[in-house]
Amino acid sequence: MSDGAPRIGVWFAGARGSVSTTAIVGGLAIAHRLADRTGLVSELPVLADVALPAFEDLVFGGHDVDPIPLPRRAELLADAGVVPGALVRKLVGDLGEVDHRIRQVTPLPAGGQAEYAARIEHDLREFRDREACERVVVVNLSSTEPPLAASPAHADLDALELALRGSDRVLSTSSLYAYAALRAGCSFADFTPGSGARLPALAELAQRQGLPWAGSDGKTGETLVKSALAPMFAMRNLRVRSWAGTNLLGGGDGATLADERATASKAASKARVLGEVLGYEVDAPLHIDYVPDLGDWKTAWDHVSFEGFLGTRMAMQFTWNGCDSALAAPLVLDLARLLARAHDAGRSGPQAALAFFFKDPVGTDEHRLAQQFESLVEWAHGLGGRS
Amino acid sequence: MSDGAPRIGVWFAGARGSVSTTAIVGGLAIAHRLADRTGLVSELPVLADVALPAFEDLVFGGHDVDPIPLPRRAELLADAGVVPGALVRKLVGDLGEVDHRIRQVTPLPAGGQAEYAARIEHDLREFRDREACERVVVVNLSSTEPPLAASPAHADLDALELALRGSDRVLSTSSLYAYAALRAGCSFADFTPGSGARLPALAELAQRQGLPWAGSDGKTGETLVKSALAPMFAMRNLRVRSWAGTNLLGGGDGATLADERATASKAASKARVLGEVLGYEVDAPLHIDYVPDLGDWKTAWDHVSFEGFLGTRMAMQFTWNGCDSALAAPLVLDLARLLARAHDAGRSGPQAALAFFFKDPVGTDEHRLAQQFESLVEWAHGLGGRS
Amino acid sequence: MSDGAPRIGVWFAGARGSVSTTAIVGGLAIAHRLADRTGLVSELPVLADVALPAFEDLVFGGHDVDPIPLPRRAELLADAGVVPGALVRKLVGDLGEVDHRIRQVTPLPAGGQAEYAARIEHDLREFRDREACERVVVVNLSSTEPPLAASPAHADLDALELALRGSDRVLSTSSLYAYAALRAGCSFADFTPGSGARLPALAELAQRQGLPWAGSDGKTGETLVKSALAPMFAMRNLRVRSWAGTNLLGGGDGATLADERATASKAASKARVLGEVLGYEVDAPLHIDYVPDLGDWKTAWDHVSFEGFLGTRMAMQFTWNGCDSALAAPLVLDLARLLARAHDAGRSGPQAALAFFFKDPVGTDEHRLAQQFESLVEWAHGLGGRS
Amino acid sequence: MSDGAPRIGVWFAGARGSVSTTAIVGGLAIAHRLADRTGLVSELPVLADVALPAFEDLVFGGHDVDPIPLPRRAELLADAGVVPGALVRKLVGDLGEVDHRIRQVTPLPAGGQAEYAARIEHDLREFRDREACERVVVVNLSSTEPPLAASPAHADLDALELALRGSDRVLSTSSLYAYAALRAGCSFADFTPGSGARLPALAELAQRQGLPWAGSDGKTGETLVKSALAPMFAMRNLRVRSWAGTNLLGGGDGATLADERATASKAASKARVLGEVLGYEVDAPLHIDYVPDLGDWKTAWDHVSFEGFLGTRMAMQFTWNGCDSALAAPLVLDLARLLARAHDAGRSGPQAALAFFFKDPVGTDEHRLAQQFESLVEWAHGLGGRS
Repeated sequence: MSDGAPRIGVWFAGARGSVSTTAIVGGLAIAHRLADRTGLVSELPVLADVALPAFEDLVFGGHDVDPIPLPRRAELLADAGVVPGALVRKLVGDLGEVDHRIRQVTPLPAGGQAEYAARIEHDLREFRDREACERVVVVNLSSTEPPLAASPAHADLDALELALRGSDRVLSTSSLYAYAALRAGCSFADFTPGSGARLPALAELAQRQGLPWAGSDGKTGETLVKSALAPMFAMRNLRVRSWAGTNLLGGGDGATLADERATASKAASKARVLGEVLGYEVDAPLHIDYVPDLGDWKTAWDHVSFEGFLGTRMAMQFTWNGCDSALAAPLVLDLARLLARAHDAGRSGPQAALAFFFKDPVGTDEHRLAQQFESLVEWAHGLGGRS
Repeated sequence: MSDGAPRIGVWFAGARGSVSTTAIVGGLAIAHRLADRTGLVSELPVLADVALPAFEDLVFGGHDVDPIPLPRRAELLADAGVVPGALVRKLVGDLGEVDHRIRQVTPLPAGGQAEYAARIEHDLREFRDREACERVVVVNLSSTEPPLAASPAHADLDALELALRGSDRVLSTSSLYAYAALRAGCSFADFTPGSGARLPALAELAQRQGLPWAGSDGKTGETLVKSALAPMFAMRNLRVRSWAGTNLLGGGDGATLADERATASKAASKARVLGEVLGYEVDAPLHIDYVPDLGDWKTAWDHVSFEGFLGTRMAMQFTWNGCDSALAAPLVLDLARLLARAHDAGRSGPQAALAFFFKDPVGTDEHRLAQQFESLVEWAHGLGGRS
Repeated sequence: MSDGAPRIGVWFAGARGSVSTTAIVGGLAIAHRLADRTGLVSELPVLADVALPAFEDLVFGGHDVDPIPLPRRAELLADAGVVPGALVRKLVGDLGEVDHRIRQVTPLPAGGQAEYAARIEHDLREFRDREACERVVVVNLSSTEPPLAASPAHADLDALELALRGSDRVLSTSSLYAYAALRAGCSFADFTPGSGARLPALAELAQRQGLPWAGSDGKTGETLVKSALAPMFAMRNLRVRSWAGTNLLGGGDGATLADERATASKAASKARVLGEVLGYEVDAPLHIDYVPDLGDWKTAWDHVSFEGFLGTRMAMQFTWNGCDSALAAPLVLDLARLLARAHDAGRSGPQAALAFFFKDPVGTDEHRLAQQFESLVEWAHGLGGRS
Repeated sequence: MSDGAPRIGVWFAGARGSVSTTAIVGGLAIAHRLADRTGLVSELPVLADVALPAFEDLVFGGHDVDPIPLPRRAELLADAGVVPGALVRKLVGDLGEVDHRIRQVTPLPAGGQAEYAARIEHDLREFRDREACERVVVVNLSSTEPPLAASPAHADLDALELALRGSDRVLSTSSLYAYAALRAGCSFADFTPGSGARLPALAELAQRQGLPWAGSDGKTGETLVKSALAPMFAMRNLRVRSWAGTNLLGGGDGATLADERATASKAASKARVLGEVLGYEVDAPLHIDYVPDLGDWKTAWDHVSFEGFLGTRMAMQFTWNGCDSALAAPLVLDLARLLARAHDAGRSGPQAALAFFFKDPVGTDEHRLAQQFESLVEWAHGLGGRS
């Protein structure tokens, strides 16, 4: 622990999943000087003066429906080549300690949402107190969920609290989680494509509690590349005619997305980039395929057909072969550190400057990666430096 | 011609080559409202307020060693699918008119460089006077040349002028061309990878003449993509381990680049992007292959190996299938319009803000496409708007 | 016309579609010595001794629901870069002549199938008589249709003829067409993925009439490559773990396949290759996307994940960028010539040796391209040589 | 050891390299029932009746200039993900035993070739006697060497033996090794692209000794795919216009091939496939790049431009991402088993039927993979089955 610095809780919904496990292994490894900081945006030289919490001061905890202990999950990831086996062996004790701070939960039941939320809130408060954390950041890493049906109760907080006491299901898991987190005084980041805190009632709650939040849907692969490449066509006045994409995913996310309703949620989130960046609608068919043998790896192929001077037709293709957990985990740590600092600096409400991390950023239509990065840097510097 | 506006001469070294012919066909087509403005950066809405010369006011001329008339060159490009045949048929008269303004030249002889330069200068002055152009922009579109051997005469203008009178070859074709253009009071853009105006003696001449210049090596394909993608890795703190590239080119440029010395010049220019953007040296083998059957088309394949969180190794690949002339021609027109305006606005010396157009930009180390674009827009707005 | 040789009718269902138009343009061009024979399997040196009908002796005709005349269809294909415009201009008279032999038809109505079949049969007989053709080959090039619902009437010919007199729809368009063609004494090839002649009742009819037939679903792109590549993995004992494919199609076929039921028919036909060649089931998600801006062009991306010695995981990817009509048209001409010869040589029933041309070959499980080619060559030589 | 079966020596020149180490690990693992037989051609069902030596009866030995012990080499390969670490840990004792049978050698000196050959021959005889092997197969796995300068001494055996006694270097390492192996009565396979046994003098020696031999240059990646794909274009009468290839290699082979003379030898061997299969010359630029960060992995990109019906231009691309050692090692074991059986069956001289394994097969111009496989199967069945 760094000398006299406050402890910061980092609480994951879905704490035993691949992304969370990789983030915890990495966070612990860095705290113990066992790993370098590649992949962490918050460690770039340009952000060196921002007073972010040290890795030694992060305390991990969370919820999961899965009972498999964290050290075992880490071993499985090591076997799959996602994290180094030697690292997992060195950290087995620390991982066991974190595992004691993970509470097993049941999936969200059809009724009793108020009780469920109260249970989450209670766990969060208890965690903060027991671990003596100055503040806690909650990051939603649970599975992609189907789109939430609209409800009048989403429009304001009183209506929502009333509806929650009824027996109908009014909030999706991610939104119920956001509700509980905000009530417990925790900042919130939604790394999955669900509704999360993006309902007027929840925005109201965040404002009332003075809490910053961010989301949604971590930008880790094909969409990341899109947000770097689509501006190139725009800046050169080249007209994109079609942009077709195919994503092959193994692992848990792939299995979830094979459920068509969940895919709809994800695909909608991925599609926004092009229209916003190019300023016109493009024919952009997009597929997400579950290919179990790929494990934690994801391969995407994109084919861009575009038109240049005097109507000449040209094409670009790319394939991206990434390890999803390795790409997402450092961003999760970045978000936790940045939100903790923003909370400390008195920021509240949706943080549009964190758009850099998300496929479907809250509070802004800016999807161009370079502009998002500039906003992030400016915002972070505005939070105040090391004293 | 737009009402009362001054005529602007656009003079190409290599005026019957593919890029130049496509630029002239396109420039005429736009002036006659026969083509839209896709591919022209200078026509983006963000630059709408900059008072650039209208296409109707551009007067094309140039030099070439090739005697084939421009209308015939345009037909050949139409057969190759680079420009629409119907457009060429409509413009055959205008193309013939331009062809009368193209002077055939011999290749640069071993001795007699002063005479050669005087001949170029004379042709430029005569063109300006005869065509009643307010100003003339010279764009070098001649073939890639071998790197220029260093000489003490490059260091200052007096030494250079003395050396030119001797019988030794002291300047490459592109530099001799720049020398003549600047002496004739023309602004200058070097779209090929040679030395052009980048010698202290020539920079001195430009300054003395109060002329703006830009270069070098038009960024039209693989390097364009690199300058959009490499920053993505940097912003995400992903460590690029290797970036290998292969370029297959047909056409005249491919044949020239099959000459190994010329390739060296081109490859050096392409390699700069990565080191500058990433801030560390990357293993980046690069090939340029001449594949005659590809004609004016260029296919590039790049393979990027990179490392993420906890050392995980990932890869990205892209292929780019572009028509080189269709990509280069609008940029050439952009440069002519922007330099004419800059000249008019009293700018002189190397224009770093035009880096957006070049693989190896003069006056700046900025290779990130988004930042280059921002500089360009700011600079153009600084030139003053439509009155 | 070649001296004294019999005329052979080539009748297309879908005679004004892209494939048919390209085949007719090409067939006429070769007859007039205006084009070479690239793409024609029947012109390979190894088949030089087989006594196939000469291109001068082919007489084209057909049915279509589309009234646009053939010369206009050919012009549109020339504009799209599928056939050379100069060729179309030279053949405009011949194309008009063929167009006079194309009968416009209504789409298959819900009832009255017997009458519809009788109308087709009548047109075929009239064509043969009027044009004095020794024999006629019918090739189905109509659009992909949804899978046909099973019916007891498919099991034998008497039951089928009885059912056709009723008002229920018992045959798909392709099967009704096969029925009419066989009744008219024409050999039949099904180049689309439908049921065609593959019903026991129709096989019985072909046998009774002594007619050879072949099908189905022309193998022109991704599946062609699969049938060349999958055997490589098998011969090297490399275990394919997944083989994912995406097809981007513009043009008429793409639009039809955007209809999900039609896609099901096509995808099923494409999927057979892997299981048959590898001998085990492979996870093989497959998409067909309609991307209008691609026109007659098709781009496919396949990603193959495989396992080698000691479990090492490796991958191969390919992209195929083909012009569907240019790939299909010569195969259609090959099939017409080969079936005409087979008919002449007294062959009847399903011709398994023509599997080389089809995604879903009738009469064989052999999907390996090299073995299919060997069967084809042997079979063709068995038909007897030039006398 | 299988009951009463004779022991077969498998001797590797380059026994501590990656391919050899992988082959030994795999051979031992299979003998101990610790690994399955994926990747082994000799284990395909179609060859089940050929009486090949069992893995339990193979005895490994060899030469290397590298002193690093085999168990350590295997650990390094496990760290690089080429072989499973768990397997190496289980086999560490057996690997140590094999290591005792590996003799360290100096690189071939400038003079004294006769002595060097005698030393190799002596080691081979001693190995066979000490290990009581019925026969020994020598496989050359040493590094790629520059092309051998022609010499009159290559033409016949007497001249060669005379020249070897002189002080000039008359044979390359691979040929000197072949000479020694054949003198020692061992069959020989050349898995590298060098001259090996392909000199008339050595062929004479093999014949005199009654020994079978095979070569050269193992076909494991890009060329393997070429030999499966090029026939597809030929069989469909599609005209290949260019076939450009780029190979990125890390590891020892990459470093060697960065030496331009060695590359020349490899590239020549790779280029033969296309001309032989297609029957015409194709523009086929080919690069081999050394990219250290890729380790034992190899990524190849090939771009094929081809012409179809009526001159339509199309393209295909593929990328191959393979682990060279994992692809080569099982082929090395296949060759050892097949040559041992061929020797036993009385075959001598170059074995053209083993072309399936090689980029540059001896004794045949057949490069089509399917035909090579058929020859292999027929030949193997001709060796006689299990008694």
